[in-house]
Amino acid sequence: MQGGDVAQSPNGLVSPRTIQLDLPPGGFPLEGGKTLPEVVVQYETYGTLNSERSNAILLLHAFSGDAHAAGLHTPRDRHPGWWDDMVRPGGAFDTNRFFVICSNVLGGCRGTTGPGSINPATGTPWAMTFPVVTIGDMVAVQHQLLQQMGIQQLHATAGGSMGGMQALEWAIRYPGMSRQTILLASTHRLGAQGIAFNAVGRNAITSDPNWNEGNYYDGPQPSRGLAIARMVGHITYLSSESMRRKFGRRLQEPDQQEPDQREPGQQERRLDFQDQFAVESYLEHQGEKFVDRFDANSYIYLSKALDYYDAGASRGGLEAALSLTNSRFLVLSYSSDWLFPTEQSKEIVYALARAGKDVSFNEINSPYGHDSFLLESQLQRDLISAFLEGGAP
Amino acid sequence: MQGGDVAQSPNGLVSPRTIQLDLPPGGFPLEGGKTLPEVVVQYETYGTLNSERSNAILLLHAFSGDAHAAGLHTPRDRHPGWWDDMVRPGGAFDTNRFFVICSNVLGGCRGTTGPGSINPATGTPWAMTFPVVTIGDMVAVQHQLLQQMGIQQLHATAGGSMGGMQALEWAIRYPGMSRQTILLASTHRLGAQGIAFNAVGRNAITSDPNWNEGNYYDGPQPSRGLAIARMVGHITYLSSESMRRKFGRRLQEPDQQEPDQREPGQQERRLDFQDQFAVESYLEHQGEKFVDRFDANSYIYLSKALDYYDAGASRGGLEAALSLTNSRFLVLSYSSDWLFPTEQSKEIVYALARAGKDVSFNEINSPYGHDSFLLESQLQRDLISAFLEGGAP
Repeated sequence: MQGGDVAQSPNGLVSPRTIQLDLPPGGFPLEGGKTLPEVVVQYETYGTLNSERSNAILLLHAFSGDAHAAGLHTPRDRHPGWWDDMVRPGGAFDTNRFFVICSNVLGGCRGTTGPGSINPATGTPWAMTFPVVTIGDMVAVQHQLLQQMGIQQLHATAGGSMGGMQALEWAIRYPGMSRQTILLASTHRLGAQGIAFNAVGRNAITSDPNWNEGNYYDGPQPSRGLAIARMVGHITYLSSESMRRKFGRRLQEPDQQEPDQREPGQQERRLDFQDQFAVESYLEHQGEKFVDRFDANSYIYLSKALDYYDAGASRGGLEAALSLTNSRFLVLSYSSDWLFPTEQSKEIVYALARAGKDVSFNEINSPYGHDSFLLESQLQRDLISAFLEGGAP
Repeated sequence: MQGGDVAQSPNGLVSPRTIQLDLPPGGFPLEGGKTLPEVVVQYETYGTLNSERSNAILLLHAFSGDAHAAGLHTPRDRHPGWWDDMVRPGGAFDTNRFFVICSNVLGGCRGTTGPGSINPATGTPWAMTFPVVTIGDMVAVQHQLLQQMGIQQLHATAGGSMGGMQALEWAIRYPGMSRQTILLASTHRLGAQGIAFNAVGRNAITSDPNWNEGNYYDGPQPSRGLAIARMVGHITYLSSESMRRKFGRRLQEPDQQEPDQREPGQQERRLDFQDQFAVESYLEHQGEKFVDRFDANSYIYLSKALDYYDAGASRGGLEAALSLTNSRFLVLSYSSDWLFPTEQSKEIVYALARAGKDVSFNEINSPYGHDSFLLESQLQRDLISAFLEGGAP
């Protein structure tokens, strides 16, 4: 590794922590009616909790995110956490003032209990016997985590995409516990197209013979299926415009091709077509990288949680659901986001307004598609800072 | 089969025909430099060629289309050809006046030579040893077909999507041979996003272990990979709005589920998630149906032909390429088509205008996405009829 590849972060080194949730007799109750006999949560924190325990902000990560929102895990890390630009001293989530918490979601694969965890009753991974989890279950786990951390009040919750769904569910489930709610590139429910793309990803995974009905933890992984799911997802996270700007119809120079990470013998799969477009190589590389850090069964469970989420469904509609909230809202959408388009953010904003809630909305002009909320944006930072300032205790 | 399932068509019964192309010594030359020792073309015709041989219209089919543009193959057919609404007595392509021809493309799998054809040198299917074919090669094959049919002049060429690319290439390669050119939902070259979606489809196919480097013709087919490729494609052919209208977040009722066509034992792959969304079932069914009528290697070859096509690339740019043409043009795009968006049609229109060519353009307001050109539209019919009338001999 070259020295220049080492990342810098004003947050310095951070360490993930793990906590075992105290459960009621019978286990942790899930929305689907089942219970979990054990829930472990991995989380990180940035900044310092004040003596009144009033300055905590809970960040909710997106589908393929994790608890590592900021800082570095080792001095030689090549990448800081996923929101290092936003979570830092003087940043939108100013760690000089706020105590920022981020935990891995239930059902994921980054330290919090999920399908890859050991089922204590069998001593083997849950795999597809893991119960269905929902956005509501993720939020209930986070709530229990905060209880055990002695935090009764949040200055804010904030999240993008699936993280925004969680922030929305927080506001509805625990009215007033978070004084402010920030939803970025989010929705109160996926439309048919979003469900369709998730269905393709799941089909790619379950069609991989290595998937083996989910029982692959002691054998070869369903890597090809998971890589294809990621490729589909990745296209939906970018905009047509950003792909055009980044790749256009440029051909990949043979000597610029990503190092081939496939097994020997697979190289010949490259067909007798002389030209490989840069965008193809990029997507294939993204798919292959993803396999190293994500569990295929978690992909299935989390994508199903996305599909099932519908904030107003069992609450008499979205407006009725939002009328339960007691929080200021900031809703941001991004002009080129076609996966969670502005229209879906506006549905939340209008329902909040009809319910008489305090809501601020902005569509940020950005070419980067759904991923825009993850990319540095001065306007996003300013809007969030100003919003948090307005609700400062 | 119920009586009500039998389709009607004013075109009545039609039969595909097959012709062997007369080749120069050395075989049929391809753009990539290789030759084919044998080219068979399957085609259909509707209407009657007049004695002057001046009323022929050549239709160019789209990626997953075929030569069967209109009529029925048997009295008990459940579906007429793909453009039966447009190609009929009194229709946009009025078979009382015009002699309409449609042939399967080179590289496809519906009767014209492609990777599933037998290589005469080996007696086995070409599979991935089939040479790379381009949109230009498809057009050259059609040109040779017309020569052998004794047709030196076309009243029009017309096609949607990949068919529009062929019509565009016709106009550039054989200036004046077709008096009129109709491009629907088309483009002079794919953008990065379009290439990316095709790359995902190809990866899904080549990741299916049954693909076997393309050598599956005497064994199990790469059905799961091809089905996933089709699912991805299908999403891109529809619009977010049309999917919302058709499916929304509706759940599939268990007794409305499509009959399960998977093999016994695969049923258990349905996970322990109680709810399946209608859009998921629909997509899976579309994927499974597609496998019965399409060859996975053809998917690879044709999608590569789409990716590689760039009308202006080796001709000094699009305007220079179009300045070679000698044809009236009608260009139609569709408001909700995000795969081949209006912007790409406009690039053709503006380049034609700059080159001083006769071009008429319309964006048809339609919610059906890229597939709009395949669906009945009074406006599309009227625009095409009027355009063809304007150029009547």
